Amino acid sequence: MSLIVKKFGGSSVGSTEKIMNVAKRIIAEKEKNDKVVVVVSAMGDTTDNLIKLAKEIDKEPYKHTREMDMLLTTGEQMSIALLTMAFKVLGENAVSLTGPLAGIKTNDIHTKGKILDIKPQRVIDELDKGNIVIVAGFQGCDQLGDPVTLGRGGSDTSAVALAGALKADSCEIYTDVDGIYSADPRIVKNARRMKEITYHEMLEMARLGSGVMQPRSVEVGQLLNMPIHVRSTFTNKPGTIIREEYTMEEKGFVIRGVSHDAKVAKIAVLGVPNNPGIAYSIFSALADNNVDVDMIVQSIRNVEKNVTDMVFTVALDDLNTAKEVVDKVAADLKAIGVLIEKDVAKVSIVGVGMLGNPGIAARMFGALSNAGINIDVISTSEISISCLIKSAALEEAVNIIHNEFFAEK
Amino acid sequence: MSLIVKKFGGSSVGSTEKIMNVAKRIIAEKEKNDKVVVVVSAMGDTTDNLIKLAKEIDKEPYKHTREMDMLLTTGEQMSIALLTMAFKVLGENAVSLTGPLAGIKTNDIHTKGKILDIKPQRVIDELDKGNIVIVAGFQGCDQLGDPVTLGRGGSDTSAVALAGALKADSCEIYTDVDGIYSADPRIVKNARRMKEITYHEMLEMARLGSGVMQPRSVEVGQLLNMPIHVRSTFTNKPGTIIREEYTMEEKGFVIRGVSHDAKVAKIAVLGVPNNPGIAYSIFSALADNNVDVDMIVQSIRNVEKNVTDMVFTVALDDLNTAKEVVDKVAADLKAIGVLIEKDVAKVSIVGVGMLGNPGIAARMFGALSNAGINIDVISTSEISISCLIKSAALEEAVNIIHNEFFAEK
Repeated sequence: MSLIVKKFGGSSVGSTEKIMNVAKRIIAEKEKNDKVVVVVSAMGDTTDNLIKLAKEIDKEPYKHTREMDMLLTTGEQMSIALLTMAFKVLGENAVSLTGPLAGIKTNDIHTKGKILDIKPQRVIDELDKGNIVIVAGFQGCDQLGDPVTLGRGGSDTSAVALAGALKADSCEIYTDVDGIYSADPRIVKNARRMKEITYHEMLEMARLGSGVMQPRSVEVGQLLNMPIHVRSTFTNKPGTIIREEYTMEEKGFVIRGVSHDAKVAKIAVLGVPNNPGIAYSIFSALADNNVDVDMIVQSIRNVEKNVTDMVFTVALDDLNTAKEVVDKVAADLKAIGVLIEKDVAKVSIVGVGMLGNPGIAARMFGALSNAGINIDVISTSEISISCLIKSAALEEAVNIIHNEFFAEK
Repeated sequence: MSLIVKKFGGSSVGSTEKIMNVAKRIIAEKEKNDKVVVVVSAMGDTTDNLIKLAKEIDKEPYKHTREMDMLLTTGEQMSIALLTMAFKVLGENAVSLTGPLAGIKTNDIHTKGKILDIKPQRVIDELDKGNIVIVAGFQGCDQLGDPVTLGRGGSDTSAVALAGALKADSCEIYTDVDGIYSADPRIVKNARRMKEITYHEMLEMARLGSGVMQPRSVEVGQLLNMPIHVRSTFTNKPGTIIREEYTMEEKGFVIRGVSHDAKVAKIAVLGVPNNPGIAYSIFSALADNNVDVDMIVQSIRNVEKNVTDMVFTVALDDLNTAKEVVDKVAADLKAIGVLIEKDVAKVSIVGVGMLGNPGIAARMFGALSNAGINIDVISTSEISISCLIKSAALEEAVNIIHNEFFAEK
């Protein structure tokens, strides 16, 4: 007998037909006496349709964060009701619980809530009665009982946190891909599906552009030491388990994945007097405007005049805001000018194996150099190395680097 | 300063444009310092669309009563979120509360819940903060916190019960008609809108086919002694107040209204041996099958053989069930036969003024007789008299009777 938490996203329950299929699959996989909790998102288009209605009232509906939560939490409530009916039609005992009914308590930061605590007694009671328990993902309630949504990747977070609180034997996240790959399989043909990956590596890959898992749910898994099994909704392939450490057989690869991010932009503030506090002026102004800065390089432009260039990258989505902020600061600092480049992209390698393997960076740079791909900016973390290159070279770069580290030799 | 509860139904909030209009109207009518609670139903088609989805999972979704409540309560949750946003766009402070958040506690009879108690502290708190409070009608929660809907007329019931719990100064129910009329204005051209009507009369008229108010909300009004002001969503006419007693000026009319019901059927069980317990056999069997019996007449068919006919009416919707039940009982009782008539209709007069006015019934029968309309069955209650007639004569009968009692003389 196992206690299993399974999470299905919006595309897996996009129609009543798909809902029936999800129910059938869960029943087929359920061993006798297994206790199953299913966390589910809103049906495919529901959230978009609700946002559209809200926009008819106010073009910027997200100003009304509490009311958006009141509106959007109906989406998952619909899907839990329908999925529960599907189980009943198929002859299983089942019961639906909203996030609040499942005991998911959040702070009161509407539309971007964080789970503070889970008191899953009701879930346990319903499991003990022999029910499959269907829980609304993406939502909980604050101390007043008001509905609060968890922001991007919220349903995954609900599932992992609930699995942790229930001390579940496994937490399975069903997605439209069948696991975590050593590179994006749409770009790298022979990308390798990994059996296992550490939380730390997964977080780094997500940060560097690999889109399968939102970082928050992985962080929660790490915090609660709850392994996360990423699987395909559409196949029975074994998927990838995200956990604290690998088992022996996975230890052969020094790097675990090649991530890339095409949605970056480079900003260069040119010819700034090199006084203490320049970096602070620029980056605190950006932080005040909620712009995350990624790669940063400061280089001397003119030693005699003690003038420096400050180069950094931001997400493409933040570029307009960033440009406004930086233009203003640059004028205050009497910089020579501000240069924007949008045709840049970031390619990264990630792996805990590179710790104490000093040759890894050289292999990456060498592979790019041999292909004639110029590196604009380099940044490193404990378990990753990233290079900023021209967008046009991105696909080639990802393949070359993947080949360098994963080719069967 | 007044505390006012206003209820708007689904057709009043059928689109985001209508939602904006409702918000504008409420703001326009609000006096400075008034405290306003708005109870609102699901948007026009929402409930039907949700039921349609459920039917794709199970043709008989209402078997799953708890899950239907989980599904259907999303409808009002959407409209409270959108209406609250509309108030905010118009510059008013407002907050939405689901039925459970507003403290509406019900029993656990899903899809047909009854309100057990209201603990409206959260509503009071939000009003004290200067908010217009928008509450989801039709819903509450049981002691586990599970959502429960209140069945037909549930949003009216929510509004009246909440007004009672808040000791509101008034409770206004906005509908697509502008009050309670002395007869259906679609049939009787000069039907009179009543300024006031008693709970008792309103309940009797509703029972006898007048459709404006569901009986339950009127019962709750009576129980809590909360006057109910029925008004039009589309005009500013004064409407009708349902209360315990009239004020002086309304006392002139001995009858208050002519109700009619075209959706009835007559069943005659012919030639039953007149033994004790016949009525019990028939009507207990019908009650066991949830068929309400209305007018009942037992008449002697043949004194020598001690054989009787049992005639009664049921709602047209219940006819198929009733026929099955009655056919079986009639065979057991060795009756001569069962006769069904569907082309019948009921016309009734209602008024507390007929108590102690013995001539009223005679005036009704005389008016019908003068017009050559035959009366098939008669039944009376403390404050009403009903006649079963042929369907074809219904409109004429309603007009004749209305003219008898309401014509300006």
